[in-house]
Amino acid sequence: MSGQKQRSDRFTEALGEEIDTAFKKLASEILKEGALSVKDKALIALACSVAVKCEYCVERHKGAALKAGASKGEMLEAAAVAGLVRMGSGFNTASFLLDDSEE
Amino acid sequence: MSGQKQRSDRFTEALGEEIDTAFKKLASEILKEGALSVKDKALIALACSVAVKCEYCVERHKGAALKAGASKGEMLEAAAVAGLVRMGSGFNTASFLLDDSEE
Amino acid sequence: MSGQKQRSDRFTEALGEEIDTAFKKLASEILKEGALSVKDKALIALACSVAVKCEYCVERHKGAALKAGASKGEMLEAAAVAGLVRMGSGFNTASFLLDDSEE
Amino acid sequence: MSGQKQRSDRFTEALGEEIDTAFKKLASEILKEGALSVKDKALIALACSVAVKCEYCVERHKGAALKAGASKGEMLEAAAVAGLVRMGSGFNTASFLLDDSEE
Amino acid sequence: MSGQKQRSDRFTEALGEEIDTAFKKLASEILKEGALSVKDKALIALACSVAVKCEYCVERHKGAALKAGASKGEMLEAAAVAGLVRMGSGFNTASFLLDDSEE
Amino acid sequence: MSGQKQRSDRFTEALGEEIDTAFKKLASEILKEGALSVKDKALIALACSVAVKCEYCVERHKGAALKAGASKGEMLEAAAVAGLVRMGSGFNTASFLLDDSEE
Repeated sequence: MSGQKQRSDRFTEALGEEIDTAFKKLASEILKEGALSVKDKALIALACSVAVKCEYCVERHKGAALKAGASKGEMLEAAAVAGLVRMGSGFNTASFLLDDSEE
Repeated sequence: MSGQKQRSDRFTEALGEEIDTAFKKLASEILKEGALSVKDKALIALACSVAVKCEYCVERHKGAALKAGASKGEMLEAAAVAGLVRMGSGFNTASFLLDDSEE
Repeated sequence: MSGQKQRSDRFTEALGEEIDTAFKKLASEILKEGALSVKDKALIALACSVAVKCEYCVERHKGAALKAGASKGEMLEAAAVAGLVRMGSGFNTASFLLDDSEE
Repeated sequence: MSGQKQRSDRFTEALGEEIDTAFKKLASEILKEGALSVKDKALIALACSVAVKCEYCVERHKGAALKAGASKGEMLEAAAVAGLVRMGSGFNTASFLLDDSEE
Repeated sequence: MSGQKQRSDRFTEALGEEIDTAFKKLASEILKEGALSVKDKALIALACSVAVKCEYCVERHKGAALKAGASKGEMLEAAAVAGLVRMGSGFNTASFLLDDSEE
Repeated sequence: MSGQKQRSDRFTEALGEEIDTAFKKLASEILKEGALSVKDKALIALACSVAVKCEYCVERHKGAALKAGASKGEMLEAAAVAGLVRMGSGFNTASFLLDDSEE
């Protein structure tokens, strides 16, 4: 994908300079080194891409994670956690079956 | 919840008679006995309520499933499938990590 | 798709034998005959695939449903229920418009 | 809810001034009058709140829509469109059942 | 895409005339001119398509919006609002981190 | 919430010992120390809880993150990344507006 503009970048650029700049500012504030490192945040973004089922996001944040030094094993483990949370969140909803308000 | 109107019914009624009638017509066409029984459809609706994480829907379709003769075991198993699909769908997205287009 | 490995299988295999085995064990426990038949569960999984908007899952669970003896009509009806629950769950959220806490 | 801070505001404020400021800047750029009016955008935000099933968002954007002069009828109709898109998007996924690659 | 049937139309037609008719009736009731214009509703449907991450829906409602006279700027702004609501709804959930019940 | 069983635990226990054991085995395999630490995984799970908008999951994984030594700042930053990915994933879908197939 190198040499090719990301879909979301094309969209914010089409929205005009003001929104494009504001979006990039927010993204860089959120992803910059803070309590968590840039690499940690890239792995978290990768996992969240799986959690929301966005293939384009997986590709983007995989690129960022690799650039920040993440290994394949770290990326795979982060993605596995996302799958687990998807199931666990469903089971939380399913637990409402056990509430006996209607019986 | 008996004696209490469902949230989604309150909403479609507020939209006026034409939409309310059209929605109820569609819902009854989809949920009526066909290739699948009313009970099968109630269990499917229950599982889908878990899949989309809608607690109100769980309560509603649990009521319908009980009325159609579903057992607690059937309802729990249907809900478990929903959780599994939530995880599996995430793992499908995660598999894009394995595509080597960027390396 | 026969002769081709499913995306989610490729992912869990990449995670290593321990997670792959644990995932397959859980999946087989959830999908095996119990209070519901294998065919019922395949149809439920198909409907949930629609509910979470996962095209790969639709293909997989369609294959399982056909193998368990489901008809095209049964599969279509299960999927229709999923669409209805998606709308109904939205209408449940929409009903919060009718709460008058702010007026 | 007047006099009470919104949940999302409490969160961005907890993230510190830089992110809070960047988020508010982006939100105000996106929601300000442009090709669409402030009222149009509030109604769109309300519908999207239903689309993503966020009750807190419904309350917030209902408040903004009322302030921008939206009527109850306009708000209800916007929310109904969201429910329809939820169902239609499911039916798009369901259509993959009709692809005959496996038969 | 002109001259080509939409995916969701193919699905409802496969469900048989009763459901197909009931779905089209409901869709036309929801999308017809009311408190909001047909163009307003098309833009709202477009934004909701982004909110639920449905690419097929984006294409369909873009077509409807263009037909109803929407400009590219209006469509882009509607879609931007959808992205903002997706983030804001996440931040609402994130705010539960600030509740101190466990500390 | 100490002293109180988690919703998802109540659900898997109701499903019977086989599924409960298989689910706990998978969860412990995914969350145990590997290429990523237990603390890293707890923060990722927390972010994914925000990404899928599950309040119960936020509470659970906040508890696990605190136990693994995560600071409030780390948790807040992880959650912020989740919100960003929610918006970015929407913008990826929105970019389909820019494809000119229909004009």
